[in-house]
Amino acid sequence: MGSFKGHVLPGCFFFIAGIWWTGKHSLWHATRRNKSVGSTRLASRASQRRLETAESAVIVFFSLVGMLAEQFAAGGPRLHLYDFAEKHWEQLHNWQHATMYLFFGLAGMVSLVIHATETAPLALDRLMLALAFFNEGFLFLYHLHGRNMLDIHVHQLLLYAVFGGALVSFLEIFHRGNIVLELLRCALTLLQGSWFWQIGFVLYPPRGPDWDLMDHNNAMFVTMCYSWHLAFAMLVVGVLYCTVSCVVRSRLKRTPPMEMGLLKPRERDPESEDETL
Amino acid sequence: MGSFKGHVLPGCFFFIAGIWWTGKHSLWHATRRNKSVGSTRLASRASQRRLETAESAVIVFFSLVGMLAEQFAAGGPRLHLYDFAEKHWEQLHNWQHATMYLFFGLAGMVSLVIHATETAPLALDRLMLALAFFNEGFLFLYHLHGRNMLDIHVHQLLLYAVFGGALVSFLEIFHRGNIVLELLRCALTLLQGSWFWQIGFVLYPPRGPDWDLMDHNNAMFVTMCYSWHLAFAMLVVGVLYCTVSCVVRSRLKRTPPMEMGLLKPRERDPESEDETL
Amino acid sequence: MGSFKGHVLPGCFFFIAGIWWTGKHSLWHATRRNKSVGSTRLASRASQRRLETAESAVIVFFSLVGMLAEQFAAGGPRLHLYDFAEKHWEQLHNWQHATMYLFFGLAGMVSLVIHATETAPLALDRLMLALAFFNEGFLFLYHLHGRNMLDIHVHQLLLYAVFGGALVSFLEIFHRGNIVLELLRCALTLLQGSWFWQIGFVLYPPRGPDWDLMDHNNAMFVTMCYSWHLAFAMLVVGVLYCTVSCVVRSRLKRTPPMEMGLLKPRERDPESEDETL
Amino acid sequence: MGSFKGHVLPGCFFFIAGIWWTGKHSLWHATRRNKSVGSTRLASRASQRRLETAESAVIVFFSLVGMLAEQFAAGGPRLHLYDFAEKHWEQLHNWQHATMYLFFGLAGMVSLVIHATETAPLALDRLMLALAFFNEGFLFLYHLHGRNMLDIHVHQLLLYAVFGGALVSFLEIFHRGNIVLELLRCALTLLQGSWFWQIGFVLYPPRGPDWDLMDHNNAMFVTMCYSWHLAFAMLVVGVLYCTVSCVVRSRLKRTPPMEMGLLKPRERDPESEDETL
Repeated sequence: MGSFKGHVLPGCFFFIAGIWWTGKHSLWHATRRNKSVGSTRLASRASQRRLETAESAVIVFFSLVGMLAEQFAAGGPRLHLYDFAEKHWEQLHNWQHATMYLFFGLAGMVSLVIHATETAPLALDRLMLALAFFNEGFLFLYHLHGRNMLDIHVHQLLLYAVFGGALVSFLEIFHRGNIVLELLRCALTLLQGSWFWQIGFVLYPPRGPDWDLMDHNNAMFVTMCYSWHLAFAMLVVGVLYCTVSCVVRSRLKRTPPMEMGLLKPRERDPESEDETL
Repeated sequence: MGSFKGHVLPGCFFFIAGIWWTGKHSLWHATRRNKSVGSTRLASRASQRRLETAESAVIVFFSLVGMLAEQFAAGGPRLHLYDFAEKHWEQLHNWQHATMYLFFGLAGMVSLVIHATETAPLALDRLMLALAFFNEGFLFLYHLHGRNMLDIHVHQLLLYAVFGGALVSFLEIFHRGNIVLELLRCALTLLQGSWFWQIGFVLYPPRGPDWDLMDHNNAMFVTMCYSWHLAFAMLVVGVLYCTVSCVVRSRLKRTPPMEMGLLKPRERDPESEDETL
Repeated sequence: MGSFKGHVLPGCFFFIAGIWWTGKHSLWHATRRNKSVGSTRLASRASQRRLETAESAVIVFFSLVGMLAEQFAAGGPRLHLYDFAEKHWEQLHNWQHATMYLFFGLAGMVSLVIHATETAPLALDRLMLALAFFNEGFLFLYHLHGRNMLDIHVHQLLLYAVFGGALVSFLEIFHRGNIVLELLRCALTLLQGSWFWQIGFVLYPPRGPDWDLMDHNNAMFVTMCYSWHLAFAMLVVGVLYCTVSCVVRSRLKRTPPMEMGLLKPRERDPESEDETL
Repeated sequence: MGSFKGHVLPGCFFFIAGIWWTGKHSLWHATRRNKSVGSTRLASRASQRRLETAESAVIVFFSLVGMLAEQFAAGGPRLHLYDFAEKHWEQLHNWQHATMYLFFGLAGMVSLVIHATETAPLALDRLMLALAFFNEGFLFLYHLHGRNMLDIHVHQLLLYAVFGGALVSFLEIFHRGNIVLELLRCALTLLQGSWFWQIGFVLYPPRGPDWDLMDHNNAMFVTMCYSWHLAFAMLVVGVLYCTVSCVVRSRLKRTPPMEMGLLKPRERDPESEDETL
């Protein structure tokens, strides 16, 4: 039903997405805070849009790859849904995974249209992301029937990160550009990524003995381990954010001071995190 | 207790409501965005009110029809609530369905009063809609005692759309005119409509063999199917929104350019979705 | 453990509170909307404060009466908490009811201090009200161990109104003076009041046969009945609101027109419900 | 697995934190309200930052002490996680408690960096606090397997305060400086502290007979007792707030009146609780 690779691969997707978003939002926040020191070269409105468009295209591409892999990789259902001869559904797990990828693909496509054409409201991209996360959690929720205790437990823990990501994305509809929410979303995405790896190592240990899936002490350790993953994700986000901030500030200091006199006084307090893009 | 028609009919109501709302909100959002190009002819404040009044009247009418059908159609309780002779309640399911229609009727009536007289606060119509959705979900929640596994499952899935619609309507009290929330409500209403059809086809297949209501694989397929319905609803909303936007923009471009100089500069960024009507 | 009177009395308290609040908030909203027509005589800031102070004093008084009644009425624990001789707790139900009254009394006292002295932040009165409702629901939640099915069900339904009231009061901390939230709180308080009566009539029917507490059909009827109570509460709120609005408007029209010229133009759209007092 | 001391010590930490926060926020709110009377000496921006920095350092210190105590006190795991010889996890409870302290330590460290360097967004400290509370509740939630009824119940009641604190801290991200939310957080922290003591006295009574952990009446008493703890916490917060307010006002009255003429008119209504620092 599952495999080591089947958990490590999505884990990599989410981990890379988390790293990427952390860098992106840190960079934009740093340039916004230092607006008065001539940082517009680094992150102008147009370059932001180009970046978002590229990101969306990549998401669409990987979602497509994921869907095709689930369908046509070894043992996939190859687009057959129902076996009329033997009267049973074909590989429902693969179909469910493909559906999860589908929603991320839709989110990417909508985001692509929004940032490429500027005709639709900006906040739609966060709504689509929230729906994609929600759909992932929703399918996982009804995915766990009849498995072992520890198997259910590690997947239930995953739901905290998934539904948490959906909730934070939904809140971003109303608080777009709030760096605190953005970093929280990044941390939850990283957590999801690293937890997928952990699931892979717990359920399908590549070497060493299998875990006892009915031992309550294992469940307790795994719960604590989840907290450690969260702490690790927060650490990664924190280190990245600080690095980007320092680099931006040090590069801006080296800009020739002659520009300074031409600048308008900042019209907004740089502390305010609530700026809408 | 239920029938194919009894699920398809409310499905049609909700589907039509979803389509209608999508068109309405898309039109208004498009005209608001293009305010500076003389679009007020298309959606003036007065015509908006007239439209809302008409919509409310239609909702009241169909709720009344629904209530009467539940009471007086073949096998209905004809306003008898308790059979004192045999000491049992009469047709509680019909009574419950009539109660659901009652709340939508109340929402329609309040909306009618608000938009026709302008004496009550505007946001009341969203509160009444939220209560109508909530009441529908509330009654469904306690409706499912003693049914089969799949029967319970398909109705529980419906609750996501119903309570989601209630929550979004409630949020609209505070964020009136936010196009993202409006489109989300439209998508959830469409989802509810198409899912009612799906329930009808699963529980009372008009032709072909019955579904095995105790098979866990069927439940898993149905869960995934719900995601597909959501994706389909999002697609319908997206296509409608884009069509309306394009039509509005192309019609506005054909207006004589001489008007242009008379227009005040737009006082608000057309990006802002938070405009209160 | 309970009695007909023990449910009807708190029901009366909540029903009267609901009626009173509806009238109060309707009056203030109507005068705020018609500010420009010289309505300040009807609801000046000072008279509002006097009204709030009197209301708080009445709440404190009735809470005190309720607490004393629970302790010293026939069969009350008379402030004894533990029977050391027979090693059991004394009348925990009465103690729990007294605790509920205590929190409403605290809310009243804080509200009294706020409105009488104006030193504390205004929004504290809504927080205390939210905590009082929450505490009531919290105690009811753990109150139901070992009872019959229908007994549990009618009390669980009550929790919707109680926790709903707590949530709406909490939201009012951030949206003070929002008439929609205020009317919703009024409707939920009325619902709570009339449902207490219903509980009394279902569990301790004053005349007629007892209800079968294990019959599932009774539970289904009672659920629907709850919806009807909500519709009834909404009707009462609606009728009261319209009456008050009409009376205020007709009285203001009779004011001599000579005042009119002295009035400043309204600085806010009367539509806005978000005015902070 | 637990001990009297192991519950009393964290109880003291939380109780002291609650008292300290109440004093701090009351002082700042009082000085903000009386801004126009020259209160800046009492709570200037710089002294606020110094205070926050010191507070964060103390939190980091105590978290470190707590982690070391859990690891190296008598019976601790001394950083051994898994006993490979006997194939079981070492002292998972101590590890879990250390993890809880870790998150409060991280929150303290982030807060230290924010207030000492002013490079990161202010609201991050509330997010980290919310995550620390959430993590504590999360670990407690999966901590209770296989215990007695009353043991589970007293720990579940604790979760109301813990998750309540997490929610309020999260809301403070968006409503920073709202005195009502701050006082609510203080009250919930005090409640958590005093409830830890109560758990110690119920589960490990230092003298007198043990409680019957399976008696439902004990559970009902304990539930009510929780309400009393909440009322007590609210009382403590109320008394402290009033005391601080009075002291600040009386000290400000004694300032020489000659300053008065130099002051600008207050630019904000002192009633507004929504000021961002």
